[in-house]
Formats: sequence, C-alpha cells, structure tokens
Amino acid sequence: MSKVDLKMMAAQLGFSVSTVSKALRDSHEIGESTKQKILAKAKELGYKPNPYASYMRHQKSKTIGLIVPEINNSYFLQVINGAESIAREKDYHLLIYITHEDVEHEKSIIEHLQNGRVDGIIMSVTLNTKSYDYLERCISNEVPIVFYDRVCHEIETVKIVTDDFASAFSATEHLIQNGCKNIGYLSLSDNLSIGIKRLHGYKEALNKHDLQIDESKIIHCIGTDSAFDFNYKAIKELLVSHPEIDGIFGSIERFALITYQVCKELKKRIPEDIKVLCFSNLQTANYLSPSLTTIHQPAFEMGVTAATTLFKHLDKKRSMLVNDNIVIKSTLIIRESSTQRKEH
Amino acid sequence: MSKVDLKMMAAQLGFSVSTVSKALRDSHEIGESTKQKILAKAKELGYKPNPYASYMRHQKSKTIGLIVPEINNSYFLQVINGAESIAREKDYHLLIYITHEDVEHEKSIIEHLQNGRVDGIIMSVTLNTKSYDYLERCISNEVPIVFYDRVCHEIETVKIVTDDFASAFSATEHLIQNGCKNIGYLSLSDNLSIGIKRLHGYKEALNKHDLQIDESKIIHCIGTDSAFDFNYKAIKELLVSHPEIDGIFGSIERFALITYQVCKELKKRIPEDIKVLCFSNLQTANYLSPSLTTIHQPAFEMGVTAATTLFKHLDKKRSMLVNDNIVIKSTLIIRESSTQRKEH
Repeated sequence: MSKVDLKMMAAQLGFSVSTVSKALRDSHEIGESTKQKILAKAKELGYKPNPYASYMRHQKSKTIGLIVPEINNSYFLQVINGAESIAREKDYHLLIYITHEDVEHEKSIIEHLQNGRVDGIIMSVTLNTKSYDYLERCISNEVPIVFYDRVCHEIETVKIVTDDFASAFSATEHLIQNGCKNIGYLSLSDNLSIGIKRLHGYKEALNKHDLQIDESKIIHCIGTDSAFDFNYKAIKELLVSHPEIDGIFGSIERFALITYQVCKELKKRIPEDIKVLCFSNLQTANYLSPSLTTIHQPAFEMGVTAATTLFKHLDKKRSMLVNDNIVIKSTLIIRESSTQRKEH
Repeated sequence: MSKVDLKMMAAQLGFSVSTVSKALRDSHEIGESTKQKILAKAKELGYKPNPYASYMRHQKSKTIGLIVPEINNSYFLQVINGAESIAREKDYHLLIYITHEDVEHEKSIIEHLQNGRVDGIIMSVTLNTKSYDYLERCISNEVPIVFYDRVCHEIETVKIVTDDFASAFSATEHLIQNGCKNIGYLSLSDNLSIGIKRLHGYKEALNKHDLQIDESKIIHCIGTDSAFDFNYKAIKELLVSHPEIDGIFGSIERFALITYQVCKELKKRIPEDIKVLCFSNLQTANYLSPSLTTIHQPAFEMGVTAATTLFKHLDKKRSMLVNDNIVIKSTLIIRESSTQRKEH
C-alpha cells in the first residue's frame, strides 16, 4: 500500500484533486453529498493530511519546542512530563532539544527554530548563557518564548520560576535550627538568576542568625555530568580544609550526591557529623542512605504552566507575550540527612 | 523586524522570488555573480529556509520521532540521550512522544506520524500492545520503524535489544550463589517479549540449580507510576504469605524500590533476610540503603544504535528495513543488596 494522498482519493472517486481538497477543508464551494462521499472515502483509506502541506495553507506547525539544558536530571524530566501533558491535550507535537549546557548549541537551536518549524518555544537557558541577542531576535521574528527555571530577566516575556530565594533561606534556617553553625555552600553559576537567588537566600539566613558569611566555604561547582572529577575534588578540598563544616547546602542534587561519596571516603557521618540538603526532585531521595532532605521544586507544575501560558498566547495570536513572573513555590521535604538517621 | 523570507530578500535585491529561490537551491539556471549576491544577502539577514516549504520541495522533514512508554524512568531517559546525540550529529530534529503505556494513544501517535511529519520512527511499545496492524500500516506507508527494548517480533524490521534471557539467568544464579533458595519474581507483562525472556531466564537458572519453580512466588506487578498502591499490596502479600522468601528479582527498578519499602515495614533486612536485585539504570543505585544490585542495560548505546540504524536506512532510501535483531549486552553490577551490607 502506498501513501494515501489527495491524488489517490481523487482518482478513486472520480473527482478532481481540488474538489477533494476543498471538501476536506469543508469549503462552501462543494455540495453536501459530494463532501460526504469524500469524507467517507478519506475515513475508509485512513487519510491524514500532510502536516507540511497543511502548514503551507495555515502557517501553523502545531508544534512547540521545549529546550532543556540536560535530560539526565529529575527536575527537567518532570518539566518535560508537565509540558507534554498539555501539548497532548492541545493535540500539539513536542520537539525536544537538549543544549548540553553549550551556549553555541543553544544559539543554533534557537536560530533553526525561527522560520516556522515551531509555533513557540519553552526554554531554560544554559549555565553559561550571558548574551541574549539571539533570543531577542527569535521573539521579534514572532516565535514567542516562555522561560522556566533558568530565565533571562533581560527579556520581556513570561517566566515561570520557583521561590528560589525564600526556599534557600528556609532550608538554611532549617540546618541552623538543627545545630549547624558552619554551613558550606555548593554554588552552581554566577550568571544564572536562580544561582544568585539561592546563594542570596543562604547568606541572608546566616545573617539573620548572626552567623558569619565565610566566602571560603562557598565553592563553585560545575553543573554538568562530565564534571564529576572536578566537583569531587572541590568538595573534598572544602571538607578537608574546613573540618569545622557541619552542614552542606547543595544548590543542585548532583552536588549533594557527590557530597555523600566524599563523606564516605573521609569517614564523616551524615547527618551526625555533617548535615546535607539540596534542591532536588529525585524520586529515590527517600531510599538513599541516609534519606536526603530536599527542596522539591514544582517541576511538573512549572512545565504545565509554561505550556499553558504559551498556548493561551498562541490561541490569542497577540504579537508579544507580556512581561510576567509566575512564581510556583517549592517545598522543603525534611528527611534523615539534615536531622537524624532512623533505625533500619 | 519581521520574518526573513524569499519575498523580502527578493524585494531588497531587486530580483524575482523565483530567482532568489533558485539561487538558494544552487540552480544552474542562475549565474554565478547573482548567486553570490543572493547568498551574501541571505547570510546578512540571517535567512533560514522554512522547513515546511523545504519539505514541499524535497519531501524530507529532517525530523525523526522517538516514542517512549514513559519518561520518568532512568532507562528511557538514557535512550533519549543516545538517540538525541545522533540526531544532533545528523542535524535532524527529534520529536518525542510519550505513550504513558496507553495503546490507544500509541495508535493515534503512529497514525499522526504517517503523512510526512517524520522521516522515521524509533519506538518501544506499551506494556499492553497486542495487535500491530497500525504499526504495519505505518511501515507500508513508507515511514520506517526501528524498535528498541520492547519490540514486536511479528514485524519485520530492525530491533535493538539487550540479552534479557542471559542477563536474567545470570542475575538469578548470582542470587543462588549468594545463598538464596526461595526467590520471588516480580513480573512485568505477559505480552512483552522482554517480560517473557526475563522470566524465562529466572526459571532456567532455578532449573539448572535444582530449585523448584513455584508459580505462587511469581507475581504480576503493573509497570506504571500510578500503580504504586497495587504493587505495594501485591509485594507485601507475597512476602507475608511466603515468609521463606530470601531473594527478590524485580524485572524493573520500580518494583525493587517498592520492595525496599515493604521490607522496611515488615522489618525484613536487606540483604540479611532478603536479597534484592533488578533491571535498572538508576544513577543513584549506589547511594541507596543498601546500595542496589542492578542489571544495567546499555540504554545510551541502544538509543545510539537505533538512531544510527534508522539514519543509515534513510540515507540509502531503501523501501524496507531488513529484519534483524541487534543485541547489546547488559552488565550485572553487584552491590550490597544481593551480598552484604558494608560498614557505614
């Protein structure tokens, strides 16, 4: 069996291709009985309109692009799940792009998405994104962008974020209330708004509780999978050079997991010697040894909200998304790693 | 700035749209100096050909579809990562679809992908896929399908699988060699080839070691996230009604994690009272309490191989993929849960 197309249907029915095409678009030029015959044949043959031909008529791709910095990460995974649930509801297709934290790749993806392949974009920028001209060009080319998590405040559009400052603040307070006086901080990136806000929350909590901010206890880790060795070394050096450290705040889960390994090697017990917590959506947090206290971001909801916002905009056909921050709160889930180990 | 298109370039250069279009396609009808002028202008304005218009000319979407049954799963995640790495290399776009283990949704995705949206499909079927007519129709409509992991042996094409039988066999032997005499099996699905092979491997290992196969120790769990309560109850019932069980083989990681919880509740110690292992690509397996013995599937490599196979086929423009099984071996990674707990 070859592809069912307008030509084949026209031949089988004895109509012209144009008549078949018009009937399928429910044109008033075609009589009711002819339409019915053509629709019945289309159903019988399992005809599906070619999306590219359809695009040429309607200038809609029925596709949105979702850009994630990496996929091997419980947070982004749940964002994908959330955005996909809405795209499916709207009968849209979802193109997924992974930047692998590479700015040049991000740029090339954005440039490739500008001439009609997608109707809109949902994205989180890379750790290293510092200039935004290609994002601005994309929006002025009428491809709207909704940001989530790692956003560009410089660009006027809708940004879906969590309360990074407030949740880092209360997580740090939680460590202090559990006896920590020397809390190390594993920082993500100086460029990112979320990195700045989380670090700020940590510092403000120390301030509030009259604990000194010691910059040598704030170290810069690298957010990629491949930087394991670098991060391992940096965290180990921190714990060795500061044996007084009794708490570790990981700005992302990868850093907390490495801390677990470093502590094992240094024979420091979690939580007895050092308490640990981090931003994380890890499903196995509860099964770790010890179970890991996490700041759980509303990742699924953020994906849902980003997609819903984009579709609302696409339905209205407005030219620009209005600048807006939508904040969805995170939740501190307290487990053993920041309190005490339960009996097994 | 509005979208850069052929019309705009033609107006700015004083050529006809047709001349611009032909020059960009390097047509011999256009002189070299005109071509150079047009290419320079295209570069200056950042012109990107509209993929839909380009499709209408070349009948290639430069897009492949990747179908996963679920995304909240370390295995499928790594398959996506593998396939994406190849698509990126080939400058192709990757449409990701999640069936959520819903056959009707799978069917509708396949039907929607048949008229040109994608050049080919890489897929793993749902747990409940029993008839394959829509898959056959897709292939005869000249949209090639490459299967990975959960494959349809009934359909002639390339299938990328792991050695499910052999790895289930050696994992079961490993449990026996570590003293287990009563091994329960948490089964996935009766329909799936991988389910059948894994169960078969378990049974054959028991046979080889003269252990009795007790069907009441083989229970059917449900592979979806939402079936937690059902699975929890089923596993608890198994362990309560068979207190002699000293080993659990989980055909997927979700079942092993639930076993951890059930054991905690029943105050059965892993690995002292019950040894546990499962098929899993969980990155945190090593951090669990106790660390989890896993049969690690070559997920990334399977994604890479599936995509490479599909692109080879697309490059050759053959009409049908030749029936073939490509087997990539899994690795048993022995940790505490099947041997003994190490000192903390």
